[in-house]
Amino acid sequence: MSAAPAGLLEAFWDYERALQSDDLPALGRLFAPGPDTLRGDAEGLLVGHDEIGRFRAGRGGAPSRRVLSVHVRTVDDDHALVVAVTAPTRGGRGLQTQLWQRRDGAWVVAAAHVGAPPPALDTRIWRVVGDPLVHGSGAGPLAGETVAVKDLFAVAGQRVGAGNPAWERAAPVEPAHATAIAALLDAGADVRGISRTDEFAWSLAGVNHHTGTPPNPAAPRRLPGGSSSGSAAAVAAGHASIGLGTDTGGSIRVPAAYQGLWGLRTTHGAVPTAGVLPLAPSFDTVGWLCRSADLLRRVGDVLLPPSPAADGAGDAPGAAADAVLVVVRALLDLAAPDVRAAAERFAADHDGPVVEEDWALTEHDAWLAAFQTLQAREAWASHGDWLEGRLDTLGPDVRGRFERARGVTAAEGERAAAVVASAGARIRERVADRLVLVPAASSVAPRPDGGLAAVREATLRLTCLAGLAGVPALAVPLRTTGGLPCAVTLLAARGRDRDLLAHAVRLDPGRAAAEDGPAVHVDETPEADA
Amino acid sequence: MSAAPAGLLEAFWDYERALQSDDLPALGRLFAPGPDTLRGDAEGLLVGHDEIGRFRAGRGGAPSRRVLSVHVRTVDDDHALVVAVTAPTRGGRGLQTQLWQRRDGAWVVAAAHVGAPPPALDTRIWRVVGDPLVHGSGAGPLAGETVAVKDLFAVAGQRVGAGNPAWERAAPVEPAHATAIAALLDAGADVRGISRTDEFAWSLAGVNHHTGTPPNPAAPRRLPGGSSSGSAAAVAAGHASIGLGTDTGGSIRVPAAYQGLWGLRTTHGAVPTAGVLPLAPSFDTVGWLCRSADLLRRVGDVLLPPSPAADGAGDAPGAAADAVLVVVRALLDLAAPDVRAAAERFAADHDGPVVEEDWALTEHDAWLAAFQTLQAREAWASHGDWLEGRLDTLGPDVRGRFERARGVTAAEGERAAAVVASAGARIRERVADRLVLVPAASSVAPRPDGGLAAVREATLRLTCLAGLAGVPALAVPLRTTGGLPCAVTLLAARGRDRDLLAHAVRLDPGRAAAEDGPAVHVDETPEADA
Repeated sequence: MSAAPAGLLEAFWDYERALQSDDLPALGRLFAPGPDTLRGDAEGLLVGHDEIGRFRAGRGGAPSRRVLSVHVRTVDDDHALVVAVTAPTRGGRGLQTQLWQRRDGAWVVAAAHVGAPPPALDTRIWRVVGDPLVHGSGAGPLAGETVAVKDLFAVAGQRVGAGNPAWERAAPVEPAHATAIAALLDAGADVRGISRTDEFAWSLAGVNHHTGTPPNPAAPRRLPGGSSSGSAAAVAAGHASIGLGTDTGGSIRVPAAYQGLWGLRTTHGAVPTAGVLPLAPSFDTVGWLCRSADLLRRVGDVLLPPSPAADGAGDAPGAAADAVLVVVRALLDLAAPDVRAAAERFAADHDGPVVEEDWALTEHDAWLAAFQTLQAREAWASHGDWLEGRLDTLGPDVRGRFERARGVTAAEGERAAAVVASAGARIRERVADRLVLVPAASSVAPRPDGGLAAVREATLRLTCLAGLAGVPALAVPLRTTGGLPCAVTLLAARGRDRDLLAHAVRLDPGRAAAEDGPAVHVDETPEADA
Repeated sequence: MSAAPAGLLEAFWDYERALQSDDLPALGRLFAPGPDTLRGDAEGLLVGHDEIGRFRAGRGGAPSRRVLSVHVRTVDDDHALVVAVTAPTRGGRGLQTQLWQRRDGAWVVAAAHVGAPPPALDTRIWRVVGDPLVHGSGAGPLAGETVAVKDLFAVAGQRVGAGNPAWERAAPVEPAHATAIAALLDAGADVRGISRTDEFAWSLAGVNHHTGTPPNPAAPRRLPGGSSSGSAAAVAAGHASIGLGTDTGGSIRVPAAYQGLWGLRTTHGAVPTAGVLPLAPSFDTVGWLCRSADLLRRVGDVLLPPSPAADGAGDAPGAAADAVLVVVRALLDLAAPDVRAAAERFAADHDGPVVEEDWALTEHDAWLAAFQTLQAREAWASHGDWLEGRLDTLGPDVRGRFERARGVTAAEGERAAAVVASAGARIRERVADRLVLVPAASSVAPRPDGGLAAVREATLRLTCLAGLAGVPALAVPLRTTGGLPCAVTLLAARGRDRDLLAHAVRLDPGRAAAEDGPAVHVDETPEADA
């Protein structure tokens, strides 16, 4: 054993003390300035001194810990690697690797990798999880698959939590599985666990005021999308292969877009909602998310009605194989430029006829308003009795929605229902037996800080179309040129869910092959003292 | 962006390819030779090229992954840090930091920190886990605490798995909580989850053939101890604050020793075993593990009978405060030298009279044999009906024990019971109203490779004493001079559990203060090319 470079260990202990006292100025000083400084942990890699500083400012202190051992690997008088084994106060062992450099006479961290012991479960993603939580039949087309069940579905022996702790505490233990769960178990899948949802499924952000925001493994430190947020994060993180959820106003499609997953919102009424807590029954559907189109389809084989009953227009089986893709410029223009560009590339790659149509969207505002009014009326009808006097158990955003819903009159609800009916008929007529391209969300996954109401409104304007029409919508994961996940949806005629899934399988290999190679960023660490 | 040092990225990709093809010679070549090379991950830090090589040889390949981005921080022409974000095939994101150096013209890794995305749950520790799995009453002396329940206790709505998958699949859903669980819930604690056990609790190693070996956070890459292995690992990892388990032949005391936890084996019969799967009812007890003596005591306040009924000798309340500590050299000599030395230091620090006694242990062999015979007879009586024809569902070690148990005759069982009765009386008489010092296990936590039968036999020789006598045993965590966890137990008279716990609380602050400072290892990375 030799000596560490002069001053290095002192700086290391200064840093450790600053970390434990959350001394942000000292921590800022002890990390190298400039855009090349790195700090990574299980949540992702931060690049640049300022981004690291913003992260620290937002987290409210590092977990308390003790250093058990320090290993110094000296490169030269001005550079050394310091690896430390830590004992967090809450238990377990941590590991930390830091590249230190001497700059202007002072030791600073140029790069840090922080490994903290994982918790028993990621409570942002899961409420309950098991190996498995519920055994499937052990045999069948889904043997070996695992399901993340959105916390709206009845799982025998468990409560339904609906993303609201007060509701969960008051909920009865379910005596039987929801119909969809029973079908998946019978097909051989295991239930991995019960995954988090936005409160009462009434949000598209993926933020739960009580249990936190699930991570987005595909776009670190961005929102996961909701309300099937936990199911989506579980699938993206590899915790489960099937994310079972619901889609009322986009709750499958938005997390699919934000996390780069395949997703299906089913034809309204095609998959039974028995045993599923309702939000707005006129729009509520069962849906699911997977990392491959093949599995998305195999789940559909289990959950969807046996034969794809066509609805109105056309009924040729496999119609989607050389389906006409309808591109409506005005719909693409509702998305941010990077998402619109990804949708355009998707259309350009379509293996079949593409037609551009100019839908008169003059009633679009009225449609969206009717969707929201009827949704609100039904949401209050579903939960008003329980929430009356308990609105303070809700997080602010969802509470605001329910408070407004409480004020929607029966007459307003009826008027909205009439608009919904005519809008739905109009949309179904336009979709006919074709595929209609609609961005799955108006943007890539936003960062958690602010502007979410506008994002929600812009996305709902796109997602409400399938809800109004009761038609199925397949979310196809894409990437922006900036490398972030996004998605388009393909709308089809009611009952065409299986055709959409067959189409998804044809698309998938192409997508995989198109994935970019790694991004290589080479930067020299700034010169040490000359 | 500037260029990376010549040859570095080529070496990085060579390493990545070697990792994905599990090309051990190439991986060995690409890691720096010598004792200073580092490789760390969530399981701990490996030091030295050879130790790293042994780890790689044993794991059977790295998880499949793709590199998403690479960040190079060049120190000089011969040293660079490479940070890579990876996408494991099974989902999530990984982060890897490597210090590369050029030695003799070739780039090699001097230190690596590998961060893999955590699974939904650590299935070596848990079968089911929740936030919480079962809500406690919300108020009471244990409010805010979380319990890891060994998979022998009935939890309403769940099956008892007993560490054997075939048993679990066949088990009924429990209609009610075990008595001890109900008491903990009533006292305000939540059930965090159901933790792994060695099969049918018949092992001291902490190895489950089906579900793997729980990690030992306090002694990485060493055995956790069993059979309350999952409960102990959950507490040591900070996943739960209370590890509920059972102790028939040492199943609380051994994991306490291996993982540096406080533990209590209770007086036989003091805590009801209703709702707990039996192993050998003559010896089965409920016990628990905690990271602090204070919590260990508070759990006792909930689970133990209200007044400490003295048994036979002496009944002065609080007798343990200035209790006589009995040191029996022959018992200490049954432990490995490092554990014996820790026990001697403990005795030297005892705040009260210490007496050395020379117990004639001529019958010790016969006592151990009788313990094992009666345990086997009762184990077969407990599970033989079910296991008959299903012995092949057991892992080899436990299967061997049950196969031998199957051959124990009624007469052998009766003779063993007689020896147990007289041995128990003898031990209780010797313990009297004093504290008897016994190493909790014969060694520190062994490494998983081999020699476990001898370790088991040596430890049972120590642990069987409390079992034979039905007396309580408090495990007090210590450290060897080598820095590894170990423990002594204090045996007391039957019913003296609360006195032992009060004694534990008096000991705890002293232990915490005695913890060593961090170990600092400074090594220069070998010189780069001159």
